[in-house]
Amino acid sequence: MSIDSLRITAGKHFQLKDFDPAAKPCTTGSKAGDKERVDALSIELDLLQDKLYAMRSKRLLIVLQGMDTSGKDGTVRGVFRAFDPLGVRAVSFKAPTANELARDYLWRVHLQVPAAGEIVIFNRSHYEDVLITRVHGWIDADECTRRYRQIRAFEEHLVENGTTLVKCFLHISKDEQKKRLEERLADPLKHWKFDPKDLEERQYWDAYAEAYEQAIAATATPEAPWYVTPADSKSHRNVAIADILLHTMTAMKLAYPDPLAGLADIKVT
Amino acid sequence: MSIDSLRITAGKHFQLKDFDPAAKPCTTGSKAGDKERVDALSIELDLLQDKLYAMRSKRLLIVLQGMDTSGKDGTVRGVFRAFDPLGVRAVSFKAPTANELARDYLWRVHLQVPAAGEIVIFNRSHYEDVLITRVHGWIDADECTRRYRQIRAFEEHLVENGTTLVKCFLHISKDEQKKRLEERLADPLKHWKFDPKDLEERQYWDAYAEAYEQAIAATATPEAPWYVTPADSKSHRNVAIADILLHTMTAMKLAYPDPLAGLADIKVT
Repeated sequence: MSIDSLRITAGKHFQLKDFDPAAKPCTTGSKAGDKERVDALSIELDLLQDKLYAMRSKRLLIVLQGMDTSGKDGTVRGVFRAFDPLGVRAVSFKAPTANELARDYLWRVHLQVPAAGEIVIFNRSHYEDVLITRVHGWIDADECTRRYRQIRAFEEHLVENGTTLVKCFLHISKDEQKKRLEERLADPLKHWKFDPKDLEERQYWDAYAEAYEQAIAATATPEAPWYVTPADSKSHRNVAIADILLHTMTAMKLAYPDPLAGLADIKVT
Repeated sequence: MSIDSLRITAGKHFQLKDFDPAAKPCTTGSKAGDKERVDALSIELDLLQDKLYAMRSKRLLIVLQGMDTSGKDGTVRGVFRAFDPLGVRAVSFKAPTANELARDYLWRVHLQVPAAGEIVIFNRSHYEDVLITRVHGWIDADECTRRYRQIRAFEEHLVENGTTLVKCFLHISKDEQKKRLEERLADPLKHWKFDPKDLEERQYWDAYAEAYEQAIAATATPEAPWYVTPADSKSHRNVAIADILLHTMTAMKLAYPDPLAGLADIKVT
């Protein structure tokens, strides 16, 4: 399967430069074909989610990370709309509130993990606590290493207790970000998406790339893999994420439960 | 200090039978003296808690565990009333709700950890997930070992992120439990405390003792120590817990912050 080349399950030899943001390993060959493919996958994903919801025992957590403009919101909109909102919840982590800062950094994250039968998408996540914090020197290298260990232990705990965990890094190039920021400035309908802070953070592009590389290398495990998803093309990105979801949910061995096999004998009078 | 003999920081040679539930290492020599001592300690503890609250950076979590009738409620009432309710919160963990069972067993526990400046008392805790569950065979030995590891990682994470953690096992004898259950049956004012289930659980006394011994041995660390607190005598138990708190909070190096040393120069007009 074409997503296999994107999956990182061990950090030892991981280098971000080995991954091309413009690659299209999952494409059907055309943009129109990719869109059709996402529509087709959506039908399969919807069915799988219905089974997950019916089983009420397993849980799925998807972490979306990526540079500004990498398409996290667009992925939620473009791929996760396939699912019934009853069983899906998107959680956006912004700058922590005073109430959140008063606890350890995993507190607000643990609070939002999926319940049995639920799919939760983290739009940003606890990884910000080893990314923006590291880039701006709010934490030092020792604290960052400690957090990698804490995050590995936390994710291991979630997985051992019945949560399937997939982490997707939406990988764009610096040029593509420039294009998208310019679009936001040029198009009045996209003005609301423009944040002057994005220009400031763009100055730290290389530091972010390094922080991502280190974080992915330190936290990629067979149980909590990262997918370095080429995201310069939005339509390809959506195919890739839908493929990753299909692969992940298929491996979850979802099936409708039948607690009362004799239910068919019951008469409604 | 007399509480040193009660502190377990490594499980290697820990055996519950080495600890006498009727011992009184912290006593002043008389019941009246012990009560006076708790009153005196309360004044010191109140001051320390005020500093903790003013600092708004450190956190204190006290886990209370013990067999039925071991005096967990009585300890909260007898010792923790020393503190200002503004900065103290007691959390009782009962049988998990459907909503709690839909997440991993540490979810509801993490949710309740202390905020900066806060003292939280867990009246029962995540340890129930390796005690009652183990005694009744709801989890097997492998799962229990996994949970010990998960609990160690979770507690290490809390401590590394600024929480001071103390775990107290209120250690009573089987005879003392008999006496206390009979009192609850005989005294109309204590009837409300009697739960027929306590008699059922009493049949598993030895299994509980073994589960406690294993859990304490598996999770005692220098950073998250257990105190095996003799609790056959209620007045001695209170002295011991107050001593443990004083020792713990003294080690936290609490002090009023002075962010504006020049504050005295400000004139209120």
